[in-house]
Amino acid sequence: MQRILNIETVKYLGKKVKVCGWVNSRRDHGGIVFLDLRDKSCILQIVSTPDLVKGIREEDVLEIEGQIQKRPIKMVNPELETGEIELRAENIKILAKSEPLTIDLKDLKVSLPVLLDYRPITLRNKKIKAIFKIEEEVINSFRKNMKDLGFTEFQAPIIVPTATEGGAELFPIKYYNYDAYLAQSPQLYKQILVGVFERVFTVTKVFRAEPSVTTRHLSEYISLDAEMGFINSWEDLMDTCKVVIKNIFSEIEKNCNKELKMFGAILPKLTEKIPRLKMREAQEIIFQRTGRDNRKETDLISEDEKEICDFAKEKYNSELIFITHYPAKKRPFYTFPDPEGPEYTLSFDLLCRGLEVVTGGQRIHNYETLLKNIKKWKLKPGDFKFYLQAFKYGLPPEGGFAIGAERLVKQILGLENIREASLFPRDMIRIDQRLVSFKTKPRTRTSSVRVRRKK
Amino acid sequence: MQRILNIETVKYLGKKVKVCGWVNSRRDHGGIVFLDLRDKSCILQIVSTPDLVKGIREEDVLEIEGQIQKRPIKMVNPELETGEIELRAENIKILAKSEPLTIDLKDLKVSLPVLLDYRPITLRNKKIKAIFKIEEEVINSFRKNMKDLGFTEFQAPIIVPTATEGGAELFPIKYYNYDAYLAQSPQLYKQILVGVFERVFTVTKVFRAEPSVTTRHLSEYISLDAEMGFINSWEDLMDTCKVVIKNIFSEIEKNCNKELKMFGAILPKLTEKIPRLKMREAQEIIFQRTGRDNRKETDLISEDEKEICDFAKEKYNSELIFITHYPAKKRPFYTFPDPEGPEYTLSFDLLCRGLEVVTGGQRIHNYETLLKNIKKWKLKPGDFKFYLQAFKYGLPPEGGFAIGAERLVKQILGLENIREASLFPRDMIRIDQRLVSFKTKPRTRTSSVRVRRKK
Repeated sequence: MQRILNIETVKYLGKKVKVCGWVNSRRDHGGIVFLDLRDKSCILQIVSTPDLVKGIREEDVLEIEGQIQKRPIKMVNPELETGEIELRAENIKILAKSEPLTIDLKDLKVSLPVLLDYRPITLRNKKIKAIFKIEEEVINSFRKNMKDLGFTEFQAPIIVPTATEGGAELFPIKYYNYDAYLAQSPQLYKQILVGVFERVFTVTKVFRAEPSVTTRHLSEYISLDAEMGFINSWEDLMDTCKVVIKNIFSEIEKNCNKELKMFGAILPKLTEKIPRLKMREAQEIIFQRTGRDNRKETDLISEDEKEICDFAKEKYNSELIFITHYPAKKRPFYTFPDPEGPEYTLSFDLLCRGLEVVTGGQRIHNYETLLKNIKKWKLKPGDFKFYLQAFKYGLPPEGGFAIGAERLVKQILGLENIREASLFPRDMIRIDQRLVSFKTKPRTRTSSVRVRRKK
Repeated sequence: MQRILNIETVKYLGKKVKVCGWVNSRRDHGGIVFLDLRDKSCILQIVSTPDLVKGIREEDVLEIEGQIQKRPIKMVNPELETGEIELRAENIKILAKSEPLTIDLKDLKVSLPVLLDYRPITLRNKKIKAIFKIEEEVINSFRKNMKDLGFTEFQAPIIVPTATEGGAELFPIKYYNYDAYLAQSPQLYKQILVGVFERVFTVTKVFRAEPSVTTRHLSEYISLDAEMGFINSWEDLMDTCKVVIKNIFSEIEKNCNKELKMFGAILPKLTEKIPRLKMREAQEIIFQRTGRDNRKETDLISEDEKEICDFAKEKYNSELIFITHYPAKKRPFYTFPDPEGPEYTLSFDLLCRGLEVVTGGQRIHNYETLLKNIKKWKLKPGDFKFYLQAFKYGLPPEGGFAIGAERLVKQILGLENIREASLFPRDMIRIDQRLVSFKTKPRTRTSSVRVRRKK
């Protein structure tokens, strides 16, 4: 007999079926035992005589044959997709045994470190799993949108020869007899490919050697990167970004209703046009509202991002806001200077509920200007010889943006810590397991005192 | 006026349009100049007076306004999608200048090292670009197939804490104050996730510090990985693999006809059932056919892979063949031993036109057996504590496979070197540019003397 999924059993009333899955829970009632069998689709109630399920415990993996029957009225469970039926077990085969659980997977009440230490099994929890259903939907929707807009997908390199955007926060690799690094971003490659495909995108991993532990940073994260040539103005980039974010939200609303409910989450409010403020304007507003004078700072600190989001919600009823015109010296060498004031750039961040979730901008596409900037940034033109070919031989006006997938999921669901939105989070004290023996003591900083610019 | 793509101009006969793109070629005929304008869609012929295109050369990026008109009959070019029309230029704006080209991008006749040294511009060549259209299609089709079969997509970790499959060929990372490595495969993570989603897949980069230069190996490549739980038998894996490969081929046939033609490529012949041979049987056949006695070897060498493919083509008219039952000691610790002869395993490679393109097999899902094998393989159970949780708390019978995307593209198109199928190939002497100064001289080996097992 062919195995069917739990969710399919509702079509088999009165029939004999075979199902497989994990024992989610066991309830003994004298002469009768109830198992909740969990598979990838949902939970199915199994009714059994005690002898058939002797020694069976939670997380055992079973193959069960039996008949699907209606539950007695008073036992109907409207919360379950299979809540009106149950399977009367006739034959049970144990596919794998579980050791006794030391934590309750159904009702997880553990600290974040414990949650992550036991990731292989805590991921089996319904609510934890829901986070990654949302994440899959974010990525699917991003990919679909980009394709619909005529972007070509590519697989970005991970091993890179130089520090592409300045030297900090790089992980060095011992590459044969050379030094190489983990990519901080697919930036240079997506620009090169504008010269080939005009519009490109990639779903890729990027890496930052974050020198501190915050609730917003990961050492390895998923970047949803897009780059488009032949733009008329840098506003095209923000417009495209807005369309993509809006469509991601509506896809999630459509396909992840159940998952949103588990978190009591409502998607961020989007207005027809997302409000835009220059960074200096934002600082002025923050000063007016709070008396906090960061008007000479070259970036928004974390508290400022929260404050300006509060402002946008109050004033525009929008939970997203574009902050634009970051100072040239705080942005990478390739950022396009504002012709009306070249100490600022045609760059933007998109903040969502107090956190930057997208960063983007127009890039310098003129070869000589770019070369000049590389020198101005005290970088070596020789390190960028490969990249510079794209510009030396004609690249159109272009720009792009990058969405941090885990950050977006965090903000949608209201998660406290970005690690919750990463399947297997890596940070300065963890790769799967906690890294136990520090050679030097790590600095820990709270997010509010973190001022250095994060891209 | 809104820019339209070249391909769209055929609908605008007699109308004024704006197009953008690169100058693919320039032909001066006295009082008239022809430009071939290349954009992401196709080539469009531009007719212009000399004054409008003064100083314009190949790879300059232009924005052109003008009227679409029919070409004179004798100038119709049936090779082009826009071969019956041309654009009479009225206004030309230079968006970016190119320096004079030192290689002919239209008719690339350069060695592989030069092709790769100039990758940012050689990718603009039509035929080179076609390779990556095929690659995109392979990935799209793999993804679509997996989803249709109920597999959940995940993003695999790149930074890993230990050598997952033995210690060789690892790239070490300086990870804060610790040692970490680049993932050789998403193997352990996809197995963990079988415990969560039952069926998973990932499109990810994997890394091998190949100690030699061959035409078949890259230091960073795209792995199309799948893993499925609740299998009835390891044959389910080969059956699934076959369906996926078959569908990839038919999608390419359907969507990449033009690209296949450029290479004179025909898709590999697939029979209804792909022939299967045990490794020992294959070695015996090779011995019978060639007198080459590798019957005591623990793997097929490159020449053997070619020979057994010749055999499969002659005998079964199939350009693919499964080789099964590799010796346990040459496969990783998690490989399922054949109950009928545990010195061999329920593992397989899929060879295509003389090259391994897929590797897979059933895995050990029993916790105690797995633990025993880790020790037998002289690995430390402590290094696998995280991974082992998945088994300690119940994992069903499972297995999977991994397709090397670049290898598959290479074999489909008949490329000589796998580097041609990688956008930005990395190997022991190249990351974008050639790595110029060797600290030690690299060994170079030809593929035919390479006998060590590559996964």
